[in-house]
Amino acid sequence: MRRSRELQDAMAVIERGTVEIFPRPDLEDKLAHSIAKAEPLRVKFGMDPTAPDIHLGHSVPLRKLRDFQDLGHTAVLVVGDFTGLVGDPSGRSKTRPQLSPDEIEQNAETYLDQAAAILDPERLKVVRNGDWFGAMAFRDVLDLASKMTVARMLERDDFSKRYAEGSPISIHEFLYCLMQGYDSVQVRSDVELGGTDQRFNLLVGRQLQRDAGQEPQVAITMPMLVGTDGTEKMSKSLGNYVGITEPPAEMYGKIMSLPDPAMRDYFTLLTKVPADEIERLLGPDSHPRDAKRRLAREIVGFYGGADAAAEAEAEFDKVFVRSELPSEIPDYTPPRADLKDGKIWIARLVKGAGLADSTTEARRLIGQGAVSIDDTRIDDPEADVPVVDGMVLRVGKRRFARVKM
Amino acid sequence: MRRSRELQDAMAVIERGTVEIFPRPDLEDKLAHSIAKAEPLRVKFGMDPTAPDIHLGHSVPLRKLRDFQDLGHTAVLVVGDFTGLVGDPSGRSKTRPQLSPDEIEQNAETYLDQAAAILDPERLKVVRNGDWFGAMAFRDVLDLASKMTVARMLERDDFSKRYAEGSPISIHEFLYCLMQGYDSVQVRSDVELGGTDQRFNLLVGRQLQRDAGQEPQVAITMPMLVGTDGTEKMSKSLGNYVGITEPPAEMYGKIMSLPDPAMRDYFTLLTKVPADEIERLLGPDSHPRDAKRRLAREIVGFYGGADAAAEAEAEFDKVFVRSELPSEIPDYTPPRADLKDGKIWIARLVKGAGLADSTTEARRLIGQGAVSIDDTRIDDPEADVPVVDGMVLRVGKRRFARVKM
Repeated sequence: MRRSRELQDAMAVIERGTVEIFPRPDLEDKLAHSIAKAEPLRVKFGMDPTAPDIHLGHSVPLRKLRDFQDLGHTAVLVVGDFTGLVGDPSGRSKTRPQLSPDEIEQNAETYLDQAAAILDPERLKVVRNGDWFGAMAFRDVLDLASKMTVARMLERDDFSKRYAEGSPISIHEFLYCLMQGYDSVQVRSDVELGGTDQRFNLLVGRQLQRDAGQEPQVAITMPMLVGTDGTEKMSKSLGNYVGITEPPAEMYGKIMSLPDPAMRDYFTLLTKVPADEIERLLGPDSHPRDAKRRLAREIVGFYGGADAAAEAEAEFDKVFVRSELPSEIPDYTPPRADLKDGKIWIARLVKGAGLADSTTEARRLIGQGAVSIDDTRIDDPEADVPVVDGMVLRVGKRRFARVKM
Repeated sequence: MRRSRELQDAMAVIERGTVEIFPRPDLEDKLAHSIAKAEPLRVKFGMDPTAPDIHLGHSVPLRKLRDFQDLGHTAVLVVGDFTGLVGDPSGRSKTRPQLSPDEIEQNAETYLDQAAAILDPERLKVVRNGDWFGAMAFRDVLDLASKMTVARMLERDDFSKRYAEGSPISIHEFLYCLMQGYDSVQVRSDVELGGTDQRFNLLVGRQLQRDAGQEPQVAITMPMLVGTDGTEKMSKSLGNYVGITEPPAEMYGKIMSLPDPAMRDYFTLLTKVPADEIERLLGPDSHPRDAKRRLAREIVGFYGGADAAAEAEAEFDKVFVRSELPSEIPDYTPPRADLKDGKIWIARLVKGAGLADSTTEARRLIGQGAVSIDDTRIDDPEADVPVVDGMVLRVGKRRFARVKM
């Protein structure tokens, strides 16, 4: 088949940032067919309703989904409500808590609200896998389970590792994996997107579709985004994340804290800056700080708009470049009971002002030299400090409170 | 706890012929408790409704079940109707055909009719596992599947062998194994009986019961009975079986064909002849043929009564010891079309008289020297033989037909 210019352009958009397109020729065939017949492809992405908050790491496959939408295809978002309802029956996993239908629905709504910042609602289909799994009887499960062998399952990286180590793998974990694949049969997906950790599950979907007489989906894997520490995978529990609903100034500041080597991935996966421009920005004729400012503007602009990005940048310059105070600092009035002879325990002040979750954390921050009052660092976690109306308490680079008496 | 005489006697009856009682102290405890409270134990046995015909091999655990009944306990026969209805979804196995509800019910009835020759209907409870599995939803299956690890499953002899060999094991096979164990939870069995090939499944039942807060069942395994060839496990497909509904003379003759070394197991597992008498019968002061006649009388007598056993023995003596013809020989009149100049092709005659399933088999039997007419062996499978009214056709030792014109 002759590859049209349109097809080549589409492939270039889709390919950007991907780890693997498997099999690539199948994607080309599907796209060519879609272009010829003017029939959109169905691009599946599975959403875990136990973790509703989207950060930049989650946004990577969602943005790829948006690329497909912009090319005229349909995004099929599968809400894994059934899995959430069931939880992890073994009770061993902390990642699969059992949720109530209300919690699931609320999480799904939170997620969809946030995803609306990335996806095009016009080309979006949202389905819930409880619709088919809830109706399945034992014999249907046996039928599903008969489609896959134990040996094949044990090829999955984490299973093979755990099996080799002698760590228990419960049989229902095999079923979870099959369920995810069976979602593809139900939604008749042409393409499924996922992180590299989902590669095996995406291939299970292919096999189950083939068994069901469908043309198997193309599996596209996206890299795991590194967190703001520049080393670990971005995750809420590691605290190295940037939530997509964070205030523009916060988001801008977090991106500016990113180590330089992480910029290329961020540009590629989180912006539409063309490849040659990325090269120029990261090349020897450009200062890394300028590249990072551009990166922060692009990302903040994507979620909050160009004005918000400009404001966030101005604010950042004021506080971090010119070392001025931020334009807006929340007030805090310590309760009378915390004062003694006009003084307050510094850890209690930090906690009270909401700049630490506990006095223990506050003490730790003080010990790390992260706490100052009116630009004077407080080093002693046990210090009692005089309370002065209007004094500015600062924790780390970006958290402030003004004491009001 | 002091072991009473009653308990010791019960243990002696139960122990006879078993391969393993696991754990033995638990069985003693359960029996002691049962005796003290006058509460019968629930002794489970699972029946496969795809193979309704019972032969002496199948009778081994059924007779043990009867021993429990005779000790006052309740036999719980679990008809695996659900498994039969589902069949083997992979379509690979020949041992799990998918049956219709009617076929299952018919098979179960055939089985129960036959089992009635062994079991005491007063102390028998028949349940069908479709009653609980038919009502189970996917989440219940996940819950069940979460109770067992993959590694534990792969410890099962046939699974570990197949896994090591690279032969495929479908995931639903794990579920079948769990289902059998879950039957024990449903029937709250105190004891489960099975062949040695069932050992693993019996232990799965223990684990699932423990998980469900029940006292785990005691697993009792019985040996696989050798067939009439004295070497292979008795099975219909190998043709080395004795069906418990076979006519007394047939059954008697088959048992008399048993190689001497198999007699001890047959006495132990298929009769109530006391251990010391078995020793005497098989000892140097007794002729093996007398022991075997006693064995055949015992078994035929159990199923057909003492008179039938005596008749079968008399008939056997007449035909095999005194080489006379049997008292009753079925008549056969070949159709005119098979005759040519008063002769008939010998293979067609053997097949027509019902002494072979096909002319191909008939030819094979003739080639083996197993076919004779009026005591004259026919060696040529292509021979045309003169048809004489009243001539006796014989195949092997025990199959006869009298030609009537």
